Amino acid sequence: MDERFALAERILRAQPFSRLLGTRLLAFRPGRAELALRLRPEHRQQNGFAHGGVLAYLVDNALTFAAGSVLGPEVLTVEFKVNFVRPARGDELRAVGEAKAAGKRLAVARAEVYDGATLVALGQGTVAAAG
Amino acid sequence: MDERFALAERILRAQPFSRLLGTRLLAFRPGRAELALRLRPEHRQQNGFAHGGVLAYLVDNALTFAAGSVLGPEVLTVEFKVNFVRPARGDELRAVGEAKAAGKRLAVARAEVYDGATLVALGQGTVAAAG
Amino acid sequence: MDERFALAERILRAQPFSRLLGTRLLAFRPGRAELALRLRPEHRQQNGFAHGGVLAYLVDNALTFAAGSVLGPEVLTVEFKVNFVRPARGDELRAVGEAKAAGKRLAVARAEVYDGATLVALGQGTVAAAG
Amino acid sequence: MDERFALAERILRAQPFSRLLGTRLLAFRPGRAELALRLRPEHRQQNGFAHGGVLAYLVDNALTFAAGSVLGPEVLTVEFKVNFVRPARGDELRAVGEAKAAGKRLAVARAEVYDGATLVALGQGTVAAAG
Repeated sequence: MDERFALAERILRAQPFSRLLGTRLLAFRPGRAELALRLRPEHRQQNGFAHGGVLAYLVDNALTFAAGSVLGPEVLTVEFKVNFVRPARGDELRAVGEAKAAGKRLAVARAEVYDGATLVALGQGTVAAAG
Repeated sequence: MDERFALAERILRAQPFSRLLGTRLLAFRPGRAELALRLRPEHRQQNGFAHGGVLAYLVDNALTFAAGSVLGPEVLTVEFKVNFVRPARGDELRAVGEAKAAGKRLAVARAEVYDGATLVALGQGTVAAAG
Repeated sequence: MDERFALAERILRAQPFSRLLGTRLLAFRPGRAELALRLRPEHRQQNGFAHGGVLAYLVDNALTFAAGSVLGPEVLTVEFKVNFVRPARGDELRAVGEAKAAGKRLAVARAEVYDGATLVALGQGTVAAAG
Repeated sequence: MDERFALAERILRAQPFSRLLGTRLLAFRPGRAELALRLRPEHRQQNGFAHGGVLAYLVDNALTFAAGSVLGPEVLTVEFKVNFVRPARGDELRAVGEAKAAGKRLAVARAEVYDGATLVALGQGTVAAAG
């Protein structure tokens, strides 16, 4: 297995919150990360859709891993923004993060979250190299 | 008990994701909502701090409840932005949302998340009346 | 000339602020708008780079025109976010906006601003159909 | 005159874009900056309101000056978000920026733009110490 992927997966598994939610790493290469999460009843809000907090979490992690693929494994997410564009009703969410620009200390990444083939959320954020 | 508070609490309790995280409603009045969440091991990331997704969830819910206090109980969060300003290490997080402007269909709210007396995250977002 | 392009150009020319800055419409089709602005001395900040306000203006207008291409000509920009990723030093800025999701009332769009071939700013925002 | 105010005013006057728009510094003290701009016909969009780009410029500058009051005079704005909450129809806009959190390298600030007593835009953003 690719070493970078294996390291990224170890970091994801070292996040208790990601284990609680059941997030899996699908892909990790320079500039890009993909995550998946199987929607369970406890991920939903009062109308049965994925809670916005779950979508925001996925945007956050997809941005951060994508930026980490270019800045290195020790990163801090500075900020992000998310737009919710459609309720997520399905069984599995997939989040794709891409680094769009990177300096030594800061990178900007974007992320999209899909419910099957449907775009449900879009984000953009800033990640800093730690230390 | 105040009826508006009771309704807001019923909505919060009807969110399985909020029950999973253990969120409690502390205050709810026109233009303002306060939430609390006791940090448990499963809310943390790989360095032992609250995961950014937990802070983003709190910003999202604080904004949405604050906006719902002026728009009515049926709302959809359109988007929000969050800045993480300090790692959250403590036992209990408190999120304060305030509606800053509201029309018939859209409201803008801000939220702050505190770890004890320390500001750890700030957000701003847009909420729409549903239907 | 394409009628939609002509209408979009009339709207752009009807904006005194866009005339002040010298913005030109390069392309306009469903889901996409491109604008250009020749950087003049009065567009700069104290170090000779394009002022962030000029880049933010371009993000705003590119988002709004891209969303207007799907929502119709009467739109209001609800909010947007911009990341500045590199100083803009050149002669000509180009902004590309793309609608990423649209309902009846709201659309989400993204924009990038280029200085020649260099990405200098990225944005994401929400636009509402007026009325 | 206060030396910090005088320095901030020199920086504002050294921005050709701020001179083009006619921005004035009203107040500058640790953690806070206030700017004003008299709305002229060339600041407007097609319906006679202040162009969103003018409001975004004011948010940008108010955030940046407020953050600069704590980080020092050499700063770069990393990103910001703005919500437009009401059309600005009046004669004079006033923008208030406040630093909300600051480390050595990064500060987070918020800004509000008023048209007379009416809140017309709200922003939040990240500013970095240069160098």
